[in-house]
Amino acid sequence: MRISELAEQTAVPLATLKYYLREGLLHPGRSTARTQAVYDGTHVERVRLVRALTESAGLSLGSVRDVLEVLDHPPATRHELLGAAQDVLLVDEGGHLRPGGEQAHPGAASAAAPADPWVARAAELAARRGWCTTDEPLVHGLADQLRAADAAGIDLTDDHLGALAQAADGVAAADIAAVPADPGAAVRHVVVGTLLTDPVLLTMRRLAQQRASAASQDSAGGEAALPER
Amino acid sequence: MRISELAEQTAVPLATLKYYLREGLLHPGRSTARTQAVYDGTHVERVRLVRALTESAGLSLGSVRDVLEVLDHPPATRHELLGAAQDVLLVDEGGHLRPGGEQAHPGAASAAAPADPWVARAAELAARRGWCTTDEPLVHGLADQLRAADAAGIDLTDDHLGALAQAADGVAAADIAAVPADPGAAVRHVVVGTLLTDPVLLTMRRLAQQRASAASQDSAGGEAALPER
Repeated sequence: MRISELAEQTAVPLATLKYYLREGLLHPGRSTARTQAVYDGTHVERVRLVRALTESAGLSLGSVRDVLEVLDHPPATRHELLGAAQDVLLVDEGGHLRPGGEQAHPGAASAAAPADPWVARAAELAARRGWCTTDEPLVHGLADQLRAADAAGIDLTDDHLGALAQAADGVAAADIAAVPADPGAAVRHVVVGTLLTDPVLLTMRRLAQQRASAASQDSAGGEAALPER
Repeated sequence: MRISELAEQTAVPLATLKYYLREGLLHPGRSTARTQAVYDGTHVERVRLVRALTESAGLSLGSVRDVLEVLDHPPATRHELLGAAQDVLLVDEGGHLRPGGEQAHPGAASAAAPADPWVARAAELAARRGWCTTDEPLVHGLADQLRAADAAGIDLTDDHLGALAQAADGVAAADIAAVPADPGAAVRHVVVGTLLTDPVLLTMRRLAQQRASAASQDSAGGEAALPER
């Protein structure tokens, strides 16, 4: 198909597709003339993936590029698979989800001073669930997120954080159970599947909050608890 | 204190503070001369909140403004409280978390055609957990997120989505249990607390995935499952 048909089929503007091509997010079509190329189903699939990662998962195009790099060059053995997938799912110094092959948390070394109470609390939370706690960028990302909540005046109790951790364990067990056997499909499912179900989980949290608040109202008998909107 | 001291105490550049003042994200200081003003602890607190919302929760300054509006004018009664908090926690059409008082999902009316299979699946998921399902922007946000995952080639089973939903219920119960009694503090805890623990939950999910993968390897005895990195 021509690029105009690709635009039509994916509902993505022509200018955006040309931008993806220039940036290498979309592989070139097969040249049929000096200024013409044809595109196929692999292009449709790639455009849909890029759109889902930017629009639903909220990734920057730079982050999308890192994700595509891992998908296009999946690890040769299952042994390296989760490591590669996790590297691309790291959090940046601001605590955002940030795909990226390099060490994504520059503070991991310097902020690792054991005196940092937030690193200590994050490591303690991780240890309590049997998660990896040593030399782990994710633990430092978690510490930064706890520090940010505290700076904003949100006091998070051990019970509240414990409930978040327990929920994370439940989600992760289902995530790993859902990973397909084929290595290429597996890395795609872990990376893309995690990024695209993150917003699903957060939306469900809000739906569940409405229900939990109504239930709390029912049990308390009215104004004493948070009513349903 | 002078604005230079505010910059020092919050570790936020002077130019950024002036930008916050111009944009109304930070309330003016008390004028002491035509070009001078003094700032106090309320300014320090506000700057820290704005930084946490932009850096940890990843909000745009426009979204931060919507959050501050609710915090500065909390509902008069507990009855309106969760509604106001939820309005500011809605998701936009891309499925991102998007604070904002107005109807944040423009597709809520038009996309509500019952023929949309993703709206139907989202409503079914919500109904199964006893969540609100009718005329609900969150359900349409969820439908968009499921559609995006499907477009990216991620096949989400009922079991997998059910595990996410169950985790969301666990988190929400703890969220509501943690809400303080004072209405002003409550709206702050629901809105800011939810926004700042969203990234905590997602980081924990990744830590738990490492552990779940290692456990799956142990039980399967090696290469048959995903090994720890």
